[in-house]
Amino acid sequence: MELFNVVTVPEARRQIEQSWEAKWQIERVSLTEALGRRLAADVFSREEVPGFTRSTVDGFALRAEETFGATETLPACFELMGEILMGVVPEIDLLPGQAARVSTGGMLPPGANAVVMLEHTELLDPKSLAVIRPVAPGENLVFQGEDIACGSQVLTTGHRLRPQDLGLLAAVGITAVPVRLPMKVGIISTGNELVMPENEPLFGQVRDINSYVLSGLVQESGGLPLLFGIARDDPDAILALAEKALSLCDLVLISGGSSVGSRDYTVQVLKSLGTPGILFHGVSLKPGKPTLAAVADGRLVFGLPGHPVSVMVVFDLLIKPLLSLGGYGQERHPAVRAKMTRSLASGAGREEHVRVRLIERDGELWADPVLGKSGLISTMVKAQGTVVIPLEAEGLSMGQEVGVHLF
Amino acid sequence: MELFNVVTVPEARRQIEQSWEAKWQIERVSLTEALGRRLAADVFSREEVPGFTRSTVDGFALRAEETFGATETLPACFELMGEILMGVVPEIDLLPGQAARVSTGGMLPPGANAVVMLEHTELLDPKSLAVIRPVAPGENLVFQGEDIACGSQVLTTGHRLRPQDLGLLAAVGITAVPVRLPMKVGIISTGNELVMPENEPLFGQVRDINSYVLSGLVQESGGLPLLFGIARDDPDAILALAEKALSLCDLVLISGGSSVGSRDYTVQVLKSLGTPGILFHGVSLKPGKPTLAAVADGRLVFGLPGHPVSVMVVFDLLIKPLLSLGGYGQERHPAVRAKMTRSLASGAGREEHVRVRLIERDGELWADPVLGKSGLISTMVKAQGTVVIPLEAEGLSMGQEVGVHLF
Repeated sequence: MELFNVVTVPEARRQIEQSWEAKWQIERVSLTEALGRRLAADVFSREEVPGFTRSTVDGFALRAEETFGATETLPACFELMGEILMGVVPEIDLLPGQAARVSTGGMLPPGANAVVMLEHTELLDPKSLAVIRPVAPGENLVFQGEDIACGSQVLTTGHRLRPQDLGLLAAVGITAVPVRLPMKVGIISTGNELVMPENEPLFGQVRDINSYVLSGLVQESGGLPLLFGIARDDPDAILALAEKALSLCDLVLISGGSSVGSRDYTVQVLKSLGTPGILFHGVSLKPGKPTLAAVADGRLVFGLPGHPVSVMVVFDLLIKPLLSLGGYGQERHPAVRAKMTRSLASGAGREEHVRVRLIERDGELWADPVLGKSGLISTMVKAQGTVVIPLEAEGLSMGQEVGVHLF
Repeated sequence: MELFNVVTVPEARRQIEQSWEAKWQIERVSLTEALGRRLAADVFSREEVPGFTRSTVDGFALRAEETFGATETLPACFELMGEILMGVVPEIDLLPGQAARVSTGGMLPPGANAVVMLEHTELLDPKSLAVIRPVAPGENLVFQGEDIACGSQVLTTGHRLRPQDLGLLAAVGITAVPVRLPMKVGIISTGNELVMPENEPLFGQVRDINSYVLSGLVQESGGLPLLFGIARDDPDAILALAEKALSLCDLVLISGGSSVGSRDYTVQVLKSLGTPGILFHGVSLKPGKPTLAAVADGRLVFGLPGHPVSVMVVFDLLIKPLLSLGGYGQERHPAVRAKMTRSLASGAGREEHVRVRLIERDGELWADPVLGKSGLISTMVKAQGTVVIPLEAEGLSMGQEVGVHLF
């Protein structure tokens, strides 16, 4: 009987990166449409921010040196020259002994080098100001160009745009950016027992779950899912759907039929799709062992297990990074630290992914394994993340600190 | 001079929850459109999953008792009765001493109570099977109704739909669900110095950042942002935009002009919008102190600080939970644990939010404060999350373990 030629997760990644390269298409979107999109180019600022030295508080602009030694009993007194108006060039040019009222964000007038906060002053009369605490030169100011220097790189190709990044782009006057189009991902489920969810299964049939789990996972990772439906367990049926999906998509996911049972035709189909063909068949991973990948004329095809839990684990490790980054780089969110509520054994020689629920108890975070067979979708619904038992480890002990990858 | 009547964050939340209630509108969406949406009703299963007892492996169905004691040298032998076909009711009814081939997901035939894995068998001839390891009754099976019981509640009102939840809904034949419509959030920036990002600022002017930061934050929290542009520092101008926004939105955010400086008209406008009016003015929070909230005839209006960093902190604490949950419930993602790279002092009596970058060093995670004035948008772009110094604490010491809230 043909068995798996099993590779580790890092080896599987290495083989994929060697044989396949992400090709991004690009579109331009406005700032209000750009949230969550990935930049298709480095972004540089053509100006400095702020464009002028500004106050960060409501207060009075003055010469800092003239406040040195000021106290409540011995305030420093200034002649008040009026108010700096917002959004216009100040008409006030301060001489020694003079101060001008300025609001948060207002421009520092010529002659001043600091702003004293309103709370540290007293207005003696409309023309006389008493300052009761000293300020240092530069205090309560943001200097011209301090936030963003002219010509500096502010964001990098591939960066996922967050709300603050949109603010930064607005600040430098960039109102549209080139972003990567979502990778198109074809999704196929295989199995004679499957029916569409809207159909009533006959006795012996079940509804297709994986197409919907995968559709959600692809969307969440920034891809565009295209559902191609259910193929019967028949090489011609699988081949027909796979070729249709390949002609329209950058990447194709076929779930079910990736094992070595008599009805597992996916491997046979993947061999025939194009060159170089099968990269690996089997990953030392639990759940998720019967996973295969092939490259057919520049397009990547995965054969995934039939169990939805296995599908989620394999997706997270091998497919999500490709959709978001085009490869297996950095940028995995750091794990949440928690302690195991119980011990778990694991066979050495495979990487095991355990579903856990997080529990807060006495101010500490605990990872509580959600036990249940990997075929049960309900266990994934109850879990909040996974804990990895590494390839070489034989288990985890109760109370041991672990990293939980949230999903 | 009128100063703030400062409340703590929990007190601000209490006042908002007492005076305002989220009103959700509802729409029905199909599974492929439902990712990330919040359920508007509890979901119950009208069926059991799986609908029949299934094999979780590729192997042979048989009576477990007849394998007891089987070893490689002394296998248990069975008469092979053919294969269970997928998706149809088995025609095979096993008698003692008989076995039938079954694939992963296939139905257990009558007469069998377990499945032995392919790997633990040898085919002696097309009609004879040797089993070399015993199985227990029920082994390698998922029982009828084991995943989801008929009539059980599978998801709860308000739950945010993840990929595995879509799979669960597909499994029980629910192909469309009622979800909450995003809350409409009006966004207004105020300030004479502000220009739209597409305009070239004159000397003394700056571009509006907050509208775009808020637009992104609202989207990220499941709301629908509506931008109403920039109001000049003039009560009539602010009132006109605020009334327009209130007539179209569930919630209105006005940034800038929430302090007590001479040009801070937001509080004046918020007093005049409707009853009960101002809830609080000032929160013991750094950054974010000059925050105010008002309720005007059932609609909630926030006056936010002008600094984008303050805007983000206040949004996260007071506004995001309302858009996603309608109140200040649970469901904040647990913090990532990290150690401080340096000590930080904080004034007691206010909750301080410090922006940090995460650094991995010797397998440990460190939180490294991103220093910089709160007016700098670039500090938020460099940061990956925030660390909270609680109201009563006076700072954090180097090496101290803290929780980092990622954004």
